[in-house]
Amino acid sequence: MKKSLLSLAVSFAVTCSGAAWAQGDAAELEQRIANLEQRLEKSEKTADEALDKASAFEFHGYARSGLLMDDNLNGATGTGPYMTAAGALGGAVGRLGLEDDHYVEVVLDHKSQKEDGSWSKYRIMLADSVETNNEWTGAESQLNVRQVFAEIGNLASFSGAFENASIWAGKRFDRDNFDIHFIDSDIVFLSGTGIGLYDVQLSEDWKANFSIYGRDFGTIDSSGVEVENYIATMNNYMGPWQLMLSGMTAADNEERSADRADTGLHALLAYHAGSFYGMSDGFSKTGVLFGTGLGAELKGIGSNGSLNEDAQAVRLFSYGVTSFADNWRIAPALLAEYSQDRFVDSDEFMWATFNVRVAQELTKNFEMVYEGSYQYMDLDNGVDQADGSYYKATIAPTFKLDTAAGFFERPEIRVTASYVDWSEDLDNYSVSLSDDASTMGEGGEFIIGMQMETWF
Amino acid sequence: MKKSLLSLAVSFAVTCSGAAWAQGDAAELEQRIANLEQRLEKSEKTADEALDKASAFEFHGYARSGLLMDDNLNGATGTGPYMTAAGALGGAVGRLGLEDDHYVEVVLDHKSQKEDGSWSKYRIMLADSVETNNEWTGAESQLNVRQVFAEIGNLASFSGAFENASIWAGKRFDRDNFDIHFIDSDIVFLSGTGIGLYDVQLSEDWKANFSIYGRDFGTIDSSGVEVENYIATMNNYMGPWQLMLSGMTAADNEERSADRADTGLHALLAYHAGSFYGMSDGFSKTGVLFGTGLGAELKGIGSNGSLNEDAQAVRLFSYGVTSFADNWRIAPALLAEYSQDRFVDSDEFMWATFNVRVAQELTKNFEMVYEGSYQYMDLDNGVDQADGSYYKATIAPTFKLDTAAGFFERPEIRVTASYVDWSEDLDNYSVSLSDDASTMGEGGEFIIGMQMETWF
Amino acid sequence: MKKSLLSLAVSFAVTCSGAAWAQGDAAELEQRIANLEQRLEKSEKTADEALDKASAFEFHGYARSGLLMDDNLNGATGTGPYMTAAGALGGAVGRLGLEDDHYVEVVLDHKSQKEDGSWSKYRIMLADSVETNNEWTGAESQLNVRQVFAEIGNLASFSGAFENASIWAGKRFDRDNFDIHFIDSDIVFLSGTGIGLYDVQLSEDWKANFSIYGRDFGTIDSSGVEVENYIATMNNYMGPWQLMLSGMTAADNEERSADRADTGLHALLAYHAGSFYGMSDGFSKTGVLFGTGLGAELKGIGSNGSLNEDAQAVRLFSYGVTSFADNWRIAPALLAEYSQDRFVDSDEFMWATFNVRVAQELTKNFEMVYEGSYQYMDLDNGVDQADGSYYKATIAPTFKLDTAAGFFERPEIRVTASYVDWSEDLDNYSVSLSDDASTMGEGGEFIIGMQMETWF
Repeated sequence: MKKSLLSLAVSFAVTCSGAAWAQGDAAELEQRIANLEQRLEKSEKTADEALDKASAFEFHGYARSGLLMDDNLNGATGTGPYMTAAGALGGAVGRLGLEDDHYVEVVLDHKSQKEDGSWSKYRIMLADSVETNNEWTGAESQLNVRQVFAEIGNLASFSGAFENASIWAGKRFDRDNFDIHFIDSDIVFLSGTGIGLYDVQLSEDWKANFSIYGRDFGTIDSSGVEVENYIATMNNYMGPWQLMLSGMTAADNEERSADRADTGLHALLAYHAGSFYGMSDGFSKTGVLFGTGLGAELKGIGSNGSLNEDAQAVRLFSYGVTSFADNWRIAPALLAEYSQDRFVDSDEFMWATFNVRVAQELTKNFEMVYEGSYQYMDLDNGVDQADGSYYKATIAPTFKLDTAAGFFERPEIRVTASYVDWSEDLDNYSVSLSDDASTMGEGGEFIIGMQMETWF
Repeated sequence: MKKSLLSLAVSFAVTCSGAAWAQGDAAELEQRIANLEQRLEKSEKTADEALDKASAFEFHGYARSGLLMDDNLNGATGTGPYMTAAGALGGAVGRLGLEDDHYVEVVLDHKSQKEDGSWSKYRIMLADSVETNNEWTGAESQLNVRQVFAEIGNLASFSGAFENASIWAGKRFDRDNFDIHFIDSDIVFLSGTGIGLYDVQLSEDWKANFSIYGRDFGTIDSSGVEVENYIATMNNYMGPWQLMLSGMTAADNEERSADRADTGLHALLAYHAGSFYGMSDGFSKTGVLFGTGLGAELKGIGSNGSLNEDAQAVRLFSYGVTSFADNWRIAPALLAEYSQDRFVDSDEFMWATFNVRVAQELTKNFEMVYEGSYQYMDLDNGVDQADGSYYKATIAPTFKLDTAAGFFERPEIRVTASYVDWSEDLDNYSVSLSDDASTMGEGGEFIIGMQMETWF
Repeated sequence: MKKSLLSLAVSFAVTCSGAAWAQGDAAELEQRIANLEQRLEKSEKTADEALDKASAFEFHGYARSGLLMDDNLNGATGTGPYMTAAGALGGAVGRLGLEDDHYVEVVLDHKSQKEDGSWSKYRIMLADSVETNNEWTGAESQLNVRQVFAEIGNLASFSGAFENASIWAGKRFDRDNFDIHFIDSDIVFLSGTGIGLYDVQLSEDWKANFSIYGRDFGTIDSSGVEVENYIATMNNYMGPWQLMLSGMTAADNEERSADRADTGLHALLAYHAGSFYGMSDGFSKTGVLFGTGLGAELKGIGSNGSLNEDAQAVRLFSYGVTSFADNWRIAPALLAEYSQDRFVDSDEFMWATFNVRVAQELTKNFEMVYEGSYQYMDLDNGVDQADGSYYKATIAPTFKLDTAAGFFERPEIRVTASYVDWSEDLDNYSVSLSDDASTMGEGGEFIIGMQMETWF
C-alpha cells in the first residue's frame, strides 16, 4: 500500500513536472504562433496587394535593331525580306542578315478582374520603324499607335455557347493572326478598327470567332467621301483545322479609280500540327488561302484598296520547326502565290519562296545559325515581264541565354555574313507601273551585319 | 505489492511517455515555429520589396477607339461633339455615337516616398489622336507629350497652412479641372507650363490652390518676340463651394494683330453637390463662369490668343447623375454661353446645349444606353448671322463588366445608331470669317458606330 | 491490491489529464502551425511571383520642364547651355536658369533571369524635346526612339576573362558615358547602333569594354551610297584611371563634300577620384581628350561627318562635388577646348568654360542655389574672328524632398532669376560660315524662370 501510494506520488510529480514544462513552453510557443499569425496576415495582404498591382500592368514588346554594311564599308541599302521584285506582292524571303531597320513594338496592357471572375484587358501598342543608326531620330520618327483596344471576358451574364466568349472593340491586330517568323511574313494579318467576339463554342469540337473590321482606303477628292472597307469574318477551329472566311465591302471604292474592286471574298484553310509533319517533335503549319476582288490581298485581309475587280489569288504555305540531331535544329518554310488580274486585267504574277534556317548549338549560350533562301518569280504586270531566281545564304554566330530553348528563345545577339544574288533579268523589273518605282538593282552583294532581336 | 509495483511502473511508463511526447513535440513545434519565423521574415521582405517596386510605378490612361459609317456604308465624316457651328466656340453636344477618332492618353507615373513620409510624384502623359481606322499611322500620328511635371508633398519643413500643401512645376493639366463627360467638355481646363501650390489651408473651412501657368500665343514675325500668356490663379474651396479667380497678361499680344487683348480676367463659381440636386443619391455640379479680354475663353483659361480686347463671355453649367428606378440611371447636362465682341467688336454669340444620357441595365454585363442632345444657336460673327437648332438621338447597346457600377464604369464596348439633324439655316454657317472655314453641311444623317471607351 | 489498482487508476487519471492538456494544446498549436505553414507557403509564392513580376519591368526617366520670361514679360528666346557662339563647338555654359525646353526621356526596361543566373536586359528609350509651353504638341513633337538594345550577361559558357562580361547589340548610349551635369555636357557621349562586350577582365586590375558603333552621315546624292561611320572602341579601366581609345572609318565620306575626313582617332584619359581632389569628401573627375580627323568631335565620338580631314582637337575637363561647410555644397567645373583645321584648313577655335554651382541648405526641403558661369572664346572660322567673354549669374530658390541628399537628389522644383551678358564683339559672330547662321545677338538680359527637373 505504501508503495502504491508512493507510486501515486511519484506519478504525480513526474506528471506535474511534465505539465509545468509543457505549459510555460506552450504559452511561449502560443505567443510566437500568435505573432506569426498576425505578421502573416499582414504579409499576405502585402503580397496580395503587390501581386495585384504588379499584375494590373504588363509590358510586352518586340524589337530588332542593327546595322548592315556592304563590302565597301558603306551602309548596305535596299535590303530586307521584301527586297525582291515579288516583295511588292508579299513575296518575302529569309530575313536573317538582311535587316538594318530599328523596328520596335511597345505593348502596355492594363488588366482588371472583378470578384465574379470577369476580366478586362486594355492594350495600347506604340510602334516605330527607322533606318538611321543615329540615336536622335526626331526627324525620321514613325512612332505611332498601332493598337488600342479593350476586351472583356468571363462575363457572368454570358452562358451557353458564349460562356467562354470574350468581346472586344477598338483598333487591333486580330488575336489569332499567325506568321512564318523566318521570312517576316504573317500567314494572315487581319487588323483595323472594329468589334468582335472570341471563342464562341458552337459545338464540343467547334469554336469560332466573329468580327467586323473597318479599314480606310482614302478619300474621293471630288465628293469628299471617305471610302472604308468593312470586313466580316468568321474564323472556325475544329481540332487542328482552321477555316477562316471573310467577306468585305467598300461601297464607293470604284469611284476612287476605275475598275477597282468594291467587294471581296477571302478564305483560309489551315492545319496546325502538334508535330513536325508527323515525323518528329516540334510543330508544323500547312494551308491554303484564296481570295477574289478586295479579298485577293491574301495576307493583310481587306487592306489593299488598289485591287482590280477581277483580281484572284491563291497562296500555299507550309512551315515547321524540329530538332534533327543532338544540338541541331531546322525550320523549313514554303510560301507561294499565284495571282491574276490583280491590278489590271492582264497582269499575272507567280512567286514561290523556299527558306530553311538551321541552328547548331555549340554551347549553352552560343550557336551558329545558317539560312538559305530561294525565291522563284514569274512576273507580268501587263506591260513588262520578267522571271528568274533570287538566292541568299547567311551565316550568323548568335549569342543567347539558352540555345537549347529553341528557335523562338529571345533575345538573340548576332553578327551575320550574307551573300545575296539574283537573275539579271530581274535587275530593272518592278511590279508597279509607276515610272519612279524602285527596282531590285544589281545582285551579287556581300553584306555584314550586327543585330539584336527580342520579344517578350 | 507486485501489482502496486506494477502500478508504479505503469504509471511511470504512461507519465514518461506523456512527458516525453510533450517535450519532443514541443521541440519539434519550436523548430517548426523557428523555421516559420525565418521564412516569414524573408517573405515579408520579399512582399514589401515587391509592393514598393509595384507601387513606384503607375500606369493610367484614357482611350476611345471606334469607327462610324453612314447609311451608304462609307465612313461618316464631320461628326463629333464639336460638330456644330457653335463647336468652334466650345459649344459641345452629346458625344455618344458621334466619335470615330482614336484618342489615347498614356500616363506613366513614378512615385517615391522618403522615410519621413514626404513623397514625390512624376507624371508623363503621351497622347495621340488619329482618324484612320488603319493600324500603321506613322504618317498621321499626332503622338506627343501633353504633360510632364513633378510634384512633392507632405514636406517636413512645411507647417501651418502649408502642412498638407504640395508644390509642383512643369507642364500639366491642373489637378482640379473637371468636366461634363457626356458632352466631352471640361468646365474648366487650366493647363500649360508653370508652378503651383495645392491645398493651402487658409482656415478650417477654406482651402486654396495657387498657380502660375504660361502658354504660348506665337511669335511676332517682325521682332521675333515670343508672346506668352501668364495666368495667375487662386482656386478656393469652401465646403461644396468653389471660387476660382484668374488674371492673365500677354504683354505684346496686341502686336501680333491689332485689337487683340493683352490682359484678361476669369472667374468660376461652382457648387459641387453630393446628391442629385438634393433629390436623390448621386451628385450634381452647377455654376457660372465669367471672363473678359483674354479671360473670355471660359473653358481653356488663357489658351486663346485671338480674343478681342473687349471680349466678354458668361457661361452656365449644370449636370448630375442619379438612378431614377431599379436598373435605370439618368445624367442630364446643360451648358450655355453668351459672348460678345469676342473676335471683332460687333460679334455676338449665344448657344445652349441640353443633353441627357439614360442607361437601362438589362443584365450584369449589358445595358441599353440612350442619349438625346439638343443645341440652340444664335450666332453673329459681325458679318453673317444664323440661328437654329441641332438635334441628335442615339441608342447604344453596351457591354461592360458591371452595369450596376454606373455611368463611369469602364471599359465600355458599344455599338451605336444615331440620327442627327439641324436647322437648314445653319448648313453653310461658320463662326470663322476665313473663306475656307468648314461649315456644318447638310443634316439629316443616320450613323452607325462601333466603339470602345476606357479609363483607369 | 485494490488501492494499488486505485493508485494505478489515479495515476492514470492525473497523467492523462496532464497529457490531455499538453496533448490537446499541442495538437491545437500543431494545427495552427500547420495552417501557418500552408498559408506561408502560399504567401511566399505570391510574394515571389509579385516580386518577379514587379522586377521584370523597370521605369526610368529624365525630365525637365519649365518656362523662361524676359523682363518685358515675353518668352525668353535663344537661351540654353549652348547659347554662346562657342556652343556650336560644344562649348556649354552653366545651365541653371537658362532652360525653357521640355525634354523628356522615358526608359522602359524588361529584365529576365534564368535559373542558372544568366540575365537579359532590354531597354527602349523614348525621348522628346519641345519649346512650347502649350500642352498639345502634336505639330512640334519630336517624340522618337533614342535607344533600343538588348544585353545578356552572367552566361554559363563564358569563363576566364569573360566570366563577368556581358554582350549587347542594338541602338544605345554607351553604358559608361559620363557628363558634367551642371553644364549639360557629356565628357564622352559614345552612341549609335552596334555591338559590344562589357567588363572583360584582362588582368586583376584591368577591365575593358570593346565595341563597334555605326553612325549615319547621310547619302551621296549622285551615287545613292549611304555613308556610315564605324567606330571601334576599347575602353580601359585600371583603378581610378580610364583610357578610352577609338578609331573610326567612314569609307566614302570625302565624296559627300571635298576635304571631309574619312578616318579618325580619339583618345580619352580620365582620373575618377573618390574624393574632392583629395581634399574632402565627395568626388572629382579630371582628364583630357584628344582627336584627329573624324575623331576631332571630342564629345560625341564619331558623330560629326562635317569635320575636315586635318581636324585636330584637344579638350580638358575637371569637375567635382563636395560640402565645404555645414549645409553648404559646391560643385566647380572646367571644360576647355582648342581645335584647328576643324571645318576648313585655316580655322582655329579656343573656348574655356568655368562654372560653379553652390547650394545653401536652408531647411530639409528648401535650399538656395547659386550658379556663376564664365566662358572665354577666341574663335576664327577662317573668315571672321571674334573673341570675348560670356557671364551668367543665377539664383534659384529650390524645393526638394531632402536637401541633405546633395546635388543629385531629384526632383527639384525651382524658380530662377538670372542675369546674362557677354562681350559686344561676339554679338553677331557665328562659327558657321552659312549666311543664315544664328548669332548670339545682344547680351544684358534679365531672365526669370520656373522649372522642374527630375531623374529616377
